[in-house]
Amino acid sequence: MSVSSPASPFAKSFPGNLPATIEWVGEANGFLRLLDQTRLPGAVEFLDCRSAEQVHAAIRRLSVRGAPAIGVAAAFGVCLGMREQRDRRGASLDDFARELDRVVAYLGQARPTAVNLMWACQRMAETGRKTIERCHHLADSDLEAVWGELLKEARRMMAEDTAVCRRIGEHGADLMPSSGAVLTHCNAGALATTAWGTALAAIYVAHERGKRFRVFADETRPLLQGARLTAFELAAAGVDVTVICDNMAGWLMRRGEISAVIVGADRIAANGDAANKIGTYSVAVLAAHHKVPFYVAAPSSTFDLKCASGAEIPIEERSEQELREWGGNVVIPAGARVFNPAFDVTPAGLIAGIITENGVAQPVSESTVASVLRAGR
Amino acid sequence: MSVSSPASPFAKSFPGNLPATIEWVGEANGFLRLLDQTRLPGAVEFLDCRSAEQVHAAIRRLSVRGAPAIGVAAAFGVCLGMREQRDRRGASLDDFARELDRVVAYLGQARPTAVNLMWACQRMAETGRKTIERCHHLADSDLEAVWGELLKEARRMMAEDTAVCRRIGEHGADLMPSSGAVLTHCNAGALATTAWGTALAAIYVAHERGKRFRVFADETRPLLQGARLTAFELAAAGVDVTVICDNMAGWLMRRGEISAVIVGADRIAANGDAANKIGTYSVAVLAAHHKVPFYVAAPSSTFDLKCASGAEIPIEERSEQELREWGGNVVIPAGARVFNPAFDVTPAGLIAGIITENGVAQPVSESTVASVLRAGR
Repeated sequence: MSVSSPASPFAKSFPGNLPATIEWVGEANGFLRLLDQTRLPGAVEFLDCRSAEQVHAAIRRLSVRGAPAIGVAAAFGVCLGMREQRDRRGASLDDFARELDRVVAYLGQARPTAVNLMWACQRMAETGRKTIERCHHLADSDLEAVWGELLKEARRMMAEDTAVCRRIGEHGADLMPSSGAVLTHCNAGALATTAWGTALAAIYVAHERGKRFRVFADETRPLLQGARLTAFELAAAGVDVTVICDNMAGWLMRRGEISAVIVGADRIAANGDAANKIGTYSVAVLAAHHKVPFYVAAPSSTFDLKCASGAEIPIEERSEQELREWGGNVVIPAGARVFNPAFDVTPAGLIAGIITENGVAQPVSESTVASVLRAGR
Repeated sequence: MSVSSPASPFAKSFPGNLPATIEWVGEANGFLRLLDQTRLPGAVEFLDCRSAEQVHAAIRRLSVRGAPAIGVAAAFGVCLGMREQRDRRGASLDDFARELDRVVAYLGQARPTAVNLMWACQRMAETGRKTIERCHHLADSDLEAVWGELLKEARRMMAEDTAVCRRIGEHGADLMPSSGAVLTHCNAGALATTAWGTALAAIYVAHERGKRFRVFADETRPLLQGARLTAFELAAAGVDVTVICDNMAGWLMRRGEISAVIVGADRIAANGDAANKIGTYSVAVLAAHHKVPFYVAAPSSTFDLKCASGAEIPIEERSEQELREWGGNVVIPAGARVFNPAFDVTPAGLIAGIITENGVAQPVSESTVASVLRAGR
């Protein structure tokens, strides 16, 4: 995995002057260029991935993160993982199909909570399967053509994600206040998707339309995605953004300074319970206490109807080191334990509306969720 | 201000093997030795203060922190600040009185929120005033004797604080569960007082009595007093302690893992509204939502009856740098703003009981607060 720093990384993505989160550079022998989000905001650097293993590692270490972004990154990762098989002399369609299953399963498990990752991998598997079937039917075993269909599908998913995010932004903008302040947690922005974001898309489109609220961004411990990423992209887009510690959100609400909360999601159950970055649940409870509307914004690929409720969503636990160390110094004594869940689940009852590309599920229930998902078919 | 590292810093304080938070070393020409809490848990180092300015600086930079501890430190700071006047050839009682007013006002303003600081300084002023009056009456102007009364008073306050904390612990222990887990925020422990602590005193005494609950400590952003200090002293005392990010507390409550919350306070208004470390208010709201009892533990010197309610308590705002930097790295881009209040106020209605050395105000109201304060007279 090499690190590159193109001369002008900006102006490739929406909105404003943001570097592209994800880019496929070249064609059949190209590579996946990921903005290395572990280095922001101090450095704008890119990771060039040329294998499925490199994409897997980039997802694990959060160089690329955000449910929609890791889905698209994994789709390109499938292309990278299948390139060797494509080029292997004498490989059959069946060899290719078997290897595709392996690569899809491997990338689909890079992280457990975001369902978009599995969704994207399965979509790649489906495309591969259909193409292989067609080839079998035509007695044609041009693996380059099969692989070409995989790359096309990954590119289609990337373009779709951008369009979907824009539509989420348009629906969400209607729910944003015209002044005051909006609070967000973690990063559900352009950096978490291919462009625009989900929760931040609503903020960008609202500002495009002339709404002039400011934004408070929870810094979002332990990895500070709010401070490092949300503040970075909102400031780059010219939105007035103020970073606070996670524990200050309730006090701002108490002071009457927050008009609405909007966050993203990593997986949403059939009943509307939504898994998102740890701390989201606390913000939702605080919002309910202060009668501040709490919105979740996510593409329909984030819904997992196989989970009846949030209780069935697996929650990733991450390394203790994320809390134990602070810029290389140990801040928690060895005699103390650490608990570090990466996500929590906000029950549907605390969510004022779930904003999707097809419209808003509001109030949130199994039937409004089903109907907003049907609207997209 | 010199830094010293005595050979065996431990076993001077309660409970367990903790180094002393505050110590007066020597007699009339002695100095104030403070455990430098900015260096914990990595290093056990001491700051030896020989002037009021050094004590003021130590309070400002949080080398000594916690409402009761900064009160006692300031009392010794008054002694240090008055030593020059004591030793000045030809200084009169009136010169001494004027200088005392200046030193008391100077130290009393080192930080704005904790009322114990002002309370301690005023008590020193009162002792000085009475002693000077007596000397005037006797036509005796032995400034060494006057100063000696100041040192005696500071030492008395230190001993009283230890006894008061122990009594808070005994009252609080009754309210602790016999198993399960207790959550605390920031550090209201031996390190925030002369010994035992306030909130943590309840935990220590409960464990002494055989109760066996574990403790979750919010890391407490931005300065991580929970991770660095609470985990340090609980682990040293053999209490099973687990550090979490502040934003995880709600999720633990949701999972049913928290039986009670106990925190300290920096100032409590006449109606029971309590100012404490930023984030305390959010924990109180979360506790109320999950029907978990939320207790505040504080000595009666923390009450400020001149504040009818929490709205009158001044809230310190601290430097943006506390959020902008992470171990020397900038984590918030320059284009984003930062908001950094050091405290918030929890309304009495969210507090299940206020534990003082005289007993527990429960339910919390102006009349139960008044009666628990009366009980101490």
